[in-house]
Amino acid sequence: MLTFEVLKECPQTGARAGRLTTAHGSFETPVFMPVGTQGTVKAMTPDELKAMGVGIILSNTYHLYLRPGHDLVREAGGLHAFMNWDGSILTDSGGFQVFSLGKLNRISDDGVEFRSHIDGSRHFFTPELSVEVQEALGSDIAMVFDQCPPYPSDYGYVEEAVRRTTLWARRCREAHTRRGQALFGILQGGVYRDLRERSLAGLVDLDFSGYAVGGLSVGEPFSRMQEVLEYLPARLPREKPRYLMGVGTPDYLLAGILAGIDMFDCVLPTRIARNGTVMTAKGNLTLRNAGYARDFRPIDGDCPCYACQNYTRAYIRHLLKAGEILALRLTTTHNLHFLHSFMEEVRQAIYAGSLEEFARGYLRPQGDLQDT
Amino acid sequence: MLTFEVLKECPQTGARAGRLTTAHGSFETPVFMPVGTQGTVKAMTPDELKAMGVGIILSNTYHLYLRPGHDLVREAGGLHAFMNWDGSILTDSGGFQVFSLGKLNRISDDGVEFRSHIDGSRHFFTPELSVEVQEALGSDIAMVFDQCPPYPSDYGYVEEAVRRTTLWARRCREAHTRRGQALFGILQGGVYRDLRERSLAGLVDLDFSGYAVGGLSVGEPFSRMQEVLEYLPARLPREKPRYLMGVGTPDYLLAGILAGIDMFDCVLPTRIARNGTVMTAKGNLTLRNAGYARDFRPIDGDCPCYACQNYTRAYIRHLLKAGEILALRLTTTHNLHFLHSFMEEVRQAIYAGSLEEFARGYLRPQGDLQDT
Repeated sequence: MLTFEVLKECPQTGARAGRLTTAHGSFETPVFMPVGTQGTVKAMTPDELKAMGVGIILSNTYHLYLRPGHDLVREAGGLHAFMNWDGSILTDSGGFQVFSLGKLNRISDDGVEFRSHIDGSRHFFTPELSVEVQEALGSDIAMVFDQCPPYPSDYGYVEEAVRRTTLWARRCREAHTRRGQALFGILQGGVYRDLRERSLAGLVDLDFSGYAVGGLSVGEPFSRMQEVLEYLPARLPREKPRYLMGVGTPDYLLAGILAGIDMFDCVLPTRIARNGTVMTAKGNLTLRNAGYARDFRPIDGDCPCYACQNYTRAYIRHLLKAGEILALRLTTTHNLHFLHSFMEEVRQAIYAGSLEEFARGYLRPQGDLQDT
Repeated sequence: MLTFEVLKECPQTGARAGRLTTAHGSFETPVFMPVGTQGTVKAMTPDELKAMGVGIILSNTYHLYLRPGHDLVREAGGLHAFMNWDGSILTDSGGFQVFSLGKLNRISDDGVEFRSHIDGSRHFFTPELSVEVQEALGSDIAMVFDQCPPYPSDYGYVEEAVRRTTLWARRCREAHTRRGQALFGILQGGVYRDLRERSLAGLVDLDFSGYAVGGLSVGEPFSRMQEVLEYLPARLPREKPRYLMGVGTPDYLLAGILAGIDMFDCVLPTRIARNGTVMTAKGNLTLRNAGYARDFRPIDGDCPCYACQNYTRAYIRHLLKAGEILALRLTTTHNLHFLHSFMEEVRQAIYAGSLEEFARGYLRPQGDLQDT
């Protein structure tokens, strides 16, 4: 089961540091969860993640349902055994992917009919099926099936999504039976304050083990996200973990952390790595650029990661240009290490009472990252 | 410099075991050298190769000349520093690739004019340029620039290639100045015994540090290769290492080893790995096949490699179908480990005087492998 302790709260901001414990171990919060969409964090082994200090990863219900299928994963002994990861796993509900990746056919209160992005096959996803799949995967934290509107969406559409998400959350709650697996609710409401509050009230009533803020970082300006973060997380139950979905760059992470968010995930750090973009405290480097051809320095001279300790920008650029797998291993390793170290610094700053000072050095210079 | 000791010779066959030492360490022979075409053994880190016991890898002059360019590698401190590999490196001469990958324009005794397979740019490769590039790369063992005829080729064409290869070998010998870098000659002659003997006489006269048998494993039937191996390696200087180019499956390796070959290389084990084919003592497995979808056993239950100790066939198949990088890491790790262990068993059998018995268990059942 899930245990969450808030160990330190920042007196000036909403930020807090704590510890989350599942059946697969403990990790400190605020935490960034690397994404292992298809049962693997792309280019990495579980051992490498462990060595880096990663305690929880996210995996995708939609993808694993379609391939290899949740029955197969259940037969394999669950996702932990299947992918050889003994740390914690959070599975999303498939909601976001059904709406963004699948070829959508029909949405109703019953569920969503869509076609697979892999083979065009037809599927009908419901809150009950989402729970069934996540129970088969055996994740430590499951998420309710939600409807996540894109940005911009008009008030009426978002209002309907809030109503449906609350309805589905209740059905997920009722369908969920797996012991040892926590279930988190997801708030929708876009950038509309009254809808956010309506979503909050409906979800908190259902008494989930944790709450996610969904429907942000879906294309809205940074300032619109900040507006929501200013009032929303603080109104969530203090003693439960709060999760901001789809956020994984220093400026967005800090915005969430300052507002009292405990958990984050995002594919961006690993995705841009595979395109040859690496993250540093001074901004991103696009290693494919010709300017790095004869740059015999590491990505970041202060970084203790395997890539920075052993390889030059020139070599990694060569590997990228040559289409070599090692390039993707090195850039992914670096970006995950960068974010993990960043979160460690954030936690230390919260405990030291210096988070605001720390944040001033980071906010906004990487603002363009989210758009990469 | 190169030191080679023959430590054991098999009384029944031509096989021998020994030790080769370069400025970058010692390794036992017979040895299989993993191929790192573009300055990286695809999907692997140097640390992983080291942990596996690999002491020498091969890298490609043609590829590194075209990208990133040998001047850049020299600036980086040579290939060892550039790719972070402190073991031994053998570089081929570019001859084989110029003829097989480049779009060939003109061959003369001067050299070969070709167009790059990357961008179509025009280049003129000569024996002197091959040596210059290999000196810039700073490999421990350089190879002479040769002309390798495909199979089948008529007598007149192969005779001309032998003449030219001997001429070029002399020019490489004269051009070569790098201290600490050994230079090996390459024999051509196809399947024509008198041409093989002519090539041998011409090359041995030039007193190279080692000798490679080129022009085999280029499409000829296994039996034609064996015919050449029956008379050729035994006539090479006993005290110098012998290298059979392009061979890397158990049956072909054993054919070479029984004939007295000390060194081998082949892209096949790593290439088939990336297609999802893994090698075992009982034959190959094509992991993409549907039959492995629910096969929750390791690739090989007796194999101590990272892939076999931690993952099932079903999981690796899932990763292959999903296009995941980890699949290629695991299959490559396994195949290289398999070959490394195989060579270790071969060496033990030579020392124990039981090579023929060992070989009977391996010869021919994997015969189809080379055709994969």
